[in-house]
Amino acid sequence: MTALKNDIFIRALLKQPIDRTPVWMMRQAGRYLPEYRQVREQAGSFLNLCTNPELACEVTLQPLRRFDFDAAILFSDILTIPDAMGLGLYFTEGEGPKFKNLIKTAADVEKLPIPDPHAELRYVVDAVSLIRKSLQGSVPLIGFSGSPWTLATYMVEGGSSKSFQKVKSLMYEQPKLLHTLLDKLAQSVAAYLNAQIEAGAQAVMLFDTWGGMLTSEDYIEFSLYYAKQIRALLKTNVDGQQVPTILFSKGGGLWLETMADAGYDALGLDWQTDIQLARARVGDKVALQGNMDPVALYAKPEVIVEKVKSILHKYGNGSGHVFNLGHGILPDINPDHVKAMVDAVHTFSPAYHQQST
Amino acid sequence: MTALKNDIFIRALLKQPIDRTPVWMMRQAGRYLPEYRQVREQAGSFLNLCTNPELACEVTLQPLRRFDFDAAILFSDILTIPDAMGLGLYFTEGEGPKFKNLIKTAADVEKLPIPDPHAELRYVVDAVSLIRKSLQGSVPLIGFSGSPWTLATYMVEGGSSKSFQKVKSLMYEQPKLLHTLLDKLAQSVAAYLNAQIEAGAQAVMLFDTWGGMLTSEDYIEFSLYYAKQIRALLKTNVDGQQVPTILFSKGGGLWLETMADAGYDALGLDWQTDIQLARARVGDKVALQGNMDPVALYAKPEVIVEKVKSILHKYGNGSGHVFNLGHGILPDINPDHVKAMVDAVHTFSPAYHQQST
Repeated sequence: MTALKNDIFIRALLKQPIDRTPVWMMRQAGRYLPEYRQVREQAGSFLNLCTNPELACEVTLQPLRRFDFDAAILFSDILTIPDAMGLGLYFTEGEGPKFKNLIKTAADVEKLPIPDPHAELRYVVDAVSLIRKSLQGSVPLIGFSGSPWTLATYMVEGGSSKSFQKVKSLMYEQPKLLHTLLDKLAQSVAAYLNAQIEAGAQAVMLFDTWGGMLTSEDYIEFSLYYAKQIRALLKTNVDGQQVPTILFSKGGGLWLETMADAGYDALGLDWQTDIQLARARVGDKVALQGNMDPVALYAKPEVIVEKVKSILHKYGNGSGHVFNLGHGILPDINPDHVKAMVDAVHTFSPAYHQQST
Repeated sequence: MTALKNDIFIRALLKQPIDRTPVWMMRQAGRYLPEYRQVREQAGSFLNLCTNPELACEVTLQPLRRFDFDAAILFSDILTIPDAMGLGLYFTEGEGPKFKNLIKTAADVEKLPIPDPHAELRYVVDAVSLIRKSLQGSVPLIGFSGSPWTLATYMVEGGSSKSFQKVKSLMYEQPKLLHTLLDKLAQSVAAYLNAQIEAGAQAVMLFDTWGGMLTSEDYIEFSLYYAKQIRALLKTNVDGQQVPTILFSKGGGLWLETMADAGYDALGLDWQTDIQLARARVGDKVALQGNMDPVALYAKPEVIVEKVKSILHKYGNGSGHVFNLGHGILPDINPDHVKAMVDAVHTFSPAYHQQST
């Protein structure tokens, strides 16, 4: 494989010295880009786009042609694993993801297979290989998966939820059954992420979108426990290169100290969490990724620049910060505003990376 | 006025010695009660119910006939103030509250009146008087208002929102205009809560439902600042009786230390916040109210009892805890499950209030 021309994203995650703060954006390959909407239309459906490695590769590369991002992220969906388990993922306009088959009983959990990443999920592994090759070492490629708890919420609720009544009722009334499900999911996620790493992913991120809906103790028992289990199973050294790992629990700002002990190299921060206080709380244990309010990208470029400066200033001196939004970019953001954000990180971050030697 | 027969709610908020932990429930007068649904149907609409003091009084008292709650809370809506300002509140099935007139420009803010609680909001003040009289001193009556930031979100968005694009764009691009709006709202809320206190409310609570959608610094500037301003204007001593104050910012668990300095007697906690850690963080500055996961009430009574015991144990010994949910009760909860929760607080909390003298 080609050596990386720009490895500041990897180095920041490992807290190694860099010249400026790397930047990428959650959902950077997305609907805010007209060229994405064109390919999406051509694909016919979101799922067609996800399952076609050539198209997935194309949309993964699109944002890198426009902006000086320091990482690419695999274009895929967080619900590929439950789909590969046979739940029948589909999308409805305006209502988000749905499953044809729900998890209701012990028998439902029992019969769930652990998907073979090279069989049912081969389209993802193929996309990773293709993207890695197409990147030609320009920037690293991030692989990802939904967290077991987050996947379980969709599998039990049948789709998105506001109160998480079904999955929490399972948690409160049949915790062992939920643990059985989460354990299967953790094994599946670890195998899936390892396959992505083998296929060329140079960093991996676990998206725990709904961890923040739990009580503190339930978060530790039903979400973080499995994030740790996955981390322990990951093959994070490939040909002598470390593959850094990122854990992002949206709404997890309360639990950063505990999360910092889960073995991940970095934690993602939502926008509510103050990154200065977060850094003080986690110390040298982990790098931090985030955390501009995605809604701030509606503001005019001058305002965006001030927000970027404020976050860089709050993180302060030295390596260990990857600039990002605190959640995925919204679909109707003006791409020029993204450029303002990226350029501001390039312009104002070097001051925080002056070598003292 | 009659002296209170049961004042443990007031005493807990003021951290005075009590024999057991008081309990009430956000949205305790609500759709989970068949007798509420009956009166709601009779009223014809939710707004008719809110604006009719006799019916509002009736539904306020309903939960107290079923459960041994230690406080009543005025039945009303958080959006009465913007409605009284002329925005035209209405409700659509499944979509929640809406306003006919939105706040878009400086002129819109300029022309907003500060409602006279005894004129446009007289129906609320009348309801408070009537409920207070009807309670005959059995338990204290809580008055409440939405926070300026929370009211502003609805007034600018025109209803509920997911991303808060409009109000945050105002915040990011025209912060002075938003401050002008929030200042008017703070004056209105203070006058409104003072009128409720004069009419008989024995404690007041500020509901900052959407404070938790802000960044840390924006929370302090655009939400907490006005909560403090209101607190400074409240007449919290009536005929020698203290009227305790509660501040509840949903999603505010990250900011408890700062909130504890805002002058309120107590902070409401959402269910994500660990009440043991919260108590350690706020020290003796404030009492704490909360914080069972509302979804836990779907579980069977044995599970509910364990959750109650866990929260009581986490808060630990001494006064300063009001048991509650971490958010309003959900509309399809079985009332028997509420009884299990209330009874468990009665049964298991006295152990934490043994006097050492």
